Amino acid sequence: MDRVIIFDTTLRDGEQAPGFSMNTMEKLEMARQLARLQVDVIEAGFPISSDEDFEATREVAKQVGTLENAPAICGLSRVGLGDIDRCWEAVKYARKPRIHTFVATSDIHLKYKLRKSRAEVLSPEDASRTDFDYMCDVLSATIEAGAKTINIPDTVGYAIPREWGERIARIREKVQGLDRVVLSVHCHNDLGQAVANSLTAIMQGARQVECTINGIGERAGNASLEEIVMALRTRKDFFGIDTRVRTEEIFKTSRLLSHITGVHVQPNKAIVGENAFAHEAGIHQDGVLKEKLTYEIMRPEDIGRASNKLVLGKHSGRAALAARLKELGFPLAGPELDRAFKAFKDLADRKKEVYDEDLMAIATDEVTQAVAPLYELDYLHVISGTGVVPSATVRLKKEGQTFQDSGVGDGPVDAVLAAIDAITGLKGRLQDYALRSATSGKDAIGEVAMKVDFDGTIVSGKGASTDVIEASARAYLSALNRVAQPSGQRVKEVGP
Amino acid sequence: MDRVIIFDTTLRDGEQAPGFSMNTMEKLEMARQLARLQVDVIEAGFPISSDEDFEATREVAKQVGTLENAPAICGLSRVGLGDIDRCWEAVKYARKPRIHTFVATSDIHLKYKLRKSRAEVLSPEDASRTDFDYMCDVLSATIEAGAKTINIPDTVGYAIPREWGERIARIREKVQGLDRVVLSVHCHNDLGQAVANSLTAIMQGARQVECTINGIGERAGNASLEEIVMALRTRKDFFGIDTRVRTEEIFKTSRLLSHITGVHVQPNKAIVGENAFAHEAGIHQDGVLKEKLTYEIMRPEDIGRASNKLVLGKHSGRAALAARLKELGFPLAGPELDRAFKAFKDLADRKKEVYDEDLMAIATDEVTQAVAPLYELDYLHVISGTGVVPSATVRLKKEGQTFQDSGVGDGPVDAVLAAIDAITGLKGRLQDYALRSATSGKDAIGEVAMKVDFDGTIVSGKGASTDVIEASARAYLSALNRVAQPSGQRVKEVGP
Repeated sequence: MDRVIIFDTTLRDGEQAPGFSMNTMEKLEMARQLARLQVDVIEAGFPISSDEDFEATREVAKQVGTLENAPAICGLSRVGLGDIDRCWEAVKYARKPRIHTFVATSDIHLKYKLRKSRAEVLSPEDASRTDFDYMCDVLSATIEAGAKTINIPDTVGYAIPREWGERIARIREKVQGLDRVVLSVHCHNDLGQAVANSLTAIMQGARQVECTINGIGERAGNASLEEIVMALRTRKDFFGIDTRVRTEEIFKTSRLLSHITGVHVQPNKAIVGENAFAHEAGIHQDGVLKEKLTYEIMRPEDIGRASNKLVLGKHSGRAALAARLKELGFPLAGPELDRAFKAFKDLADRKKEVYDEDLMAIATDEVTQAVAPLYELDYLHVISGTGVVPSATVRLKKEGQTFQDSGVGDGPVDAVLAAIDAITGLKGRLQDYALRSATSGKDAIGEVAMKVDFDGTIVSGKGASTDVIEASARAYLSALNRVAQPSGQRVKEVGP
Repeated sequence: MDRVIIFDTTLRDGEQAPGFSMNTMEKLEMARQLARLQVDVIEAGFPISSDEDFEATREVAKQVGTLENAPAICGLSRVGLGDIDRCWEAVKYARKPRIHTFVATSDIHLKYKLRKSRAEVLSPEDASRTDFDYMCDVLSATIEAGAKTINIPDTVGYAIPREWGERIARIREKVQGLDRVVLSVHCHNDLGQAVANSLTAIMQGARQVECTINGIGERAGNASLEEIVMALRTRKDFFGIDTRVRTEEIFKTSRLLSHITGVHVQPNKAIVGENAFAHEAGIHQDGVLKEKLTYEIMRPEDIGRASNKLVLGKHSGRAALAARLKELGFPLAGPELDRAFKAFKDLADRKKEVYDEDLMAIATDEVTQAVAPLYELDYLHVISGTGVVPSATVRLKKEGQTFQDSGVGDGPVDAVLAAIDAITGLKGRLQDYALRSATSGKDAIGEVAMKVDFDGTIVSGKGASTDVIEASARAYLSALNRVAQPSGQRVKEVGP
């Protein structure tokens, strides 16, 4: 059967969106899972844009791109030899390295952004509004120059499926040599059409789609990988086209991304939302009972979604934890496993039922810890209530020494943050705060995700605990540790 | 210009989804906002399904359906005279009452769900899989019998735009009398195609779409109202079709629904997501600065989304609050305004900057309080930390008397809930817990939404405070008060 190439840009276009930034360790963890999911290409970053992006792309190429059957590892680059060389330096370690270049060609973009005449420009950004003949000339020239894949982006998410399909068909007709290369599309979701536009392009001969897990990305995001893949699979009768994706890894990949970024999908998100397979209304339930097929066009198992189940208890040992973590995609060993085991024991002491979700929260925190934290929480004591001034006492460890202080605030979280600020001398401003239970039950583990502004630098932090105040303290410290690193600890490699 | 009828089913199909249930007061508040948004039809409930649904539908018909230029108020009903009579009893108070009936006709549904022969069935549920000729016969007969609108649902979200469009075109060709009635579609989002399918149907002559705010609804939800409306508006050049919707009310309507249900849309949700209009990447920002048009196909103002702004401070008076709340769509007066003013003063004492979002949180809590709460929080004191057994002391008021007790737990929230359970004698099991900051800053107001299982009855609760523990206590009490109502306090009107 005909196959479409799944080009995942979660780590590049997805990561670019506010609140979704990932550090190198986090990108590596996602890349490993994307390899298990069997996407064809991972766009790992935009190496020229920052040293951190360069490093992350290089590490993904080295550590994931070299695995057996690894996806191609791709870097984004503007045209221009300096940019392209830098990109190559990052991706060259992979078995299948790739460079993805772009330039704007639409009239509006040309006029305002590039301030160039058409003759200077090479390949099309914002393709849905680009003067058609001109774009086709550019594409023909690009193929002539040796490009293997031609990507048509709808950068601002302006296209509607029928017109987009017609456009793709006309491009195939008009551009010379297009039958020798792979035609790709990159659709944005501003009008909610990204997945429909991608599918329409496939019907018109596109054989690569650029997409992201959970549909994350700038503004309203990119086309959602899981929706494209499951639409092709569920409606194979209609499309007659396949992907290499192992759909049983979809749910886990989606949850891992949520864990890492702290941003959860809405319950009615197609395919991966909490409710995507749920049936509540009386009439429908009646239908479901009689025959699952009535309302179920996909099965939860197809995306690897099992019901929450008790996997480990307080008497489970280190080996059992290691085995289960490995099954979940976290092959921890050595000190990482030791720390995860300690966190698991602490949790099992407080919480009767330990679920896969809890373990994922622990493991994700462990493996995505980029550097040894400068400040660690040593002790916390909080008093709050109505008619009480909320107060907190905090003791932190820093390079073997302990420091303590107290703070008051409008609530216990505010008080804890004030105490931490008093110790560190840094002043963070909370931009966003969200807390979610990873599992159900009063003793559920709470995951706090926050964005904090330290003097203009916005960083994100995460923390997990059965105690929401402690989870908040840990999240704040993890954010703070990103800006409080003693200089010289970060890898810096600035190219020529 | 040609116009499409916006049929909003947020209060029926949307409300049916797990975690989205609303009480009568909450439905009324949403209905008022939907009227301001100028949807054409509000489907307010499914009156036969429960007394509560009947009551909510009737109150929406009475209080919103009677306003000047009110939307039509619709109730869902199975075919069958008893059901239809009951539905009429609920909607008849509206200026424009409507009844929406349905029956399954697809082969799979017929066989397993209805266990009837085809001859007995009347109008099509699950239309994307229904034997085509048979369905057309059914539709012709329905029009013959006097139906004014024919709705074609894709109940399980199985259709793909091109095939759905072709299907709609063939229905228009084949069904006798279809030119005399309004053709409507109801699309589900299981494969992420609900909005694209709705738009395709409009291109093929459909002049009503059934949709919901934020795309909520069973499983992956319904077509999202805001995406359909804004796609039609932004691409008027392509569709040439209009709606009556006042788009400047879209953002507020979306946020109100989130406040009421406690479920927030993901940041990359098209149109109404936090990031929908954000631009972070360097290259794009550069573009935005040069000319907004480059990356902005819609303006935040188009959906009534203004940047957070300081509106009131601690010295603002009752009149200023009332005026601002009225602008926000909450015309409070009397005791409601008194309580909201007290909540505002409490907040302003603790929080320097009070934003519209804060006011909406206060007002929503106020106006959606269905009945006087049985238990009220009178006093709360919490101690927690590392190496401390989290403990809580709680005093509640109930019918003029006070009761107090204490509890311990795995964290401070758990301890508070244990103390409340000790007082009330009820035992709730936390199913889901989410906390979000309504605004930014350490002193932001936190909104807690939870689902609690009390002995098999699952209820939701919300609470807001700058103290997350207090917000949690309030949320738990608001859930508990839904099951702890002394009997006889609820309006019950069971028909014949």
